[in-house]
Amino acid sequence: MTTRYFEDFEVGELMETAPVALSTDDIVEFAKLYDPQTFHTDPEAAKSSPYGGLIASGLQTIAVAFGQFIRLGYFVKSSLGGPATDDVDWLAPVRPGDELNTVVEVLEVRPSKSKPDRGIVRLQFTMKVDDIPVVRFISTTFLRRRPAG
Amino acid sequence: MTTRYFEDFEVGELMETAPVALSTDDIVEFAKLYDPQTFHTDPEAAKSSPYGGLIASGLQTIAVAFGQFIRLGYFVKSSLGGPATDDVDWLAPVRPGDELNTVVEVLEVRPSKSKPDRGIVRLQFTMKVDDIPVVRFISTTFLRRRPAG
Repeated sequence: MTTRYFEDFEVGELMETAPVALSTDDIVEFAKLYDPQTFHTDPEAAKSSPYGGLIASGLQTIAVAFGQFIRLGYFVKSSLGGPATDDVDWLAPVRPGDELNTVVEVLEVRPSKSKPDRGIVRLQFTMKVDDIPVVRFISTTFLRRRPAG
Repeated sequence: MTTRYFEDFEVGELMETAPVALSTDDIVEFAKLYDPQTFHTDPEAAKSSPYGGLIASGLQTIAVAFGQFIRLGYFVKSSLGGPATDDVDWLAPVRPGDELNTVVEVLEVRPSKSKPDRGIVRLQFTMKVDDIPVVRFISTTFLRRRPAG
């Protein structure tokens, strides 16, 4: 768990996060609060949905991917927050128990024009289940530059 | 709470959702699972962050906006799920107790080229606090066409 500052990210670099899975309860609990559609909240009713069973809210899948990246610890002292996320594509359903593996690629690294203490890093997240991409998105974050000395 | 099918959405139409607020506990609970950064998880440590206090994870704010829209009930029988979200911009922080008001505008409505039973609807979500936009994003959903008869 070592903080990485703006200067420590390089375009093309890949970062792997720890695998994780969502239980039926995890999926239902999230969806009741944030995406109450029956294919996310009701395992029985979900059987007759287009997905044939319970699937995680897409919003939960991007949150899981992001959370696993944050747990790598790189942003602990460096993140100044994120202004944007782009191009979120949900490519396949995520079901209870699926092993979710997220790889994060550095797409772009550029200094801030207006604020000399920071830079902008764009990261592409790809979450896979059994090597098949299920979610992909791009996240933009402001990162502190490495302190002098 | 009436289901609206593909044909029932019109470009330019505005839909208002019910106001809602996040408590400190709501913010911390979400962030511990999905975005464990101290300005989202630790009200005390957040005071010395760039935000000067606890703020909600951006991922939680889009989930709240989407959830409030789903609670209008329009998608109950019509939604076939969403393939994409685009252009998520976090414009200002969301703090505990802020009244969150989300307006949803219909940006685009088009029939599916490959599947005659459905169409594609693109909705722009704007969440405001005190009339100031705090989050904006575009969500794409597949919707069933109105059943015959």
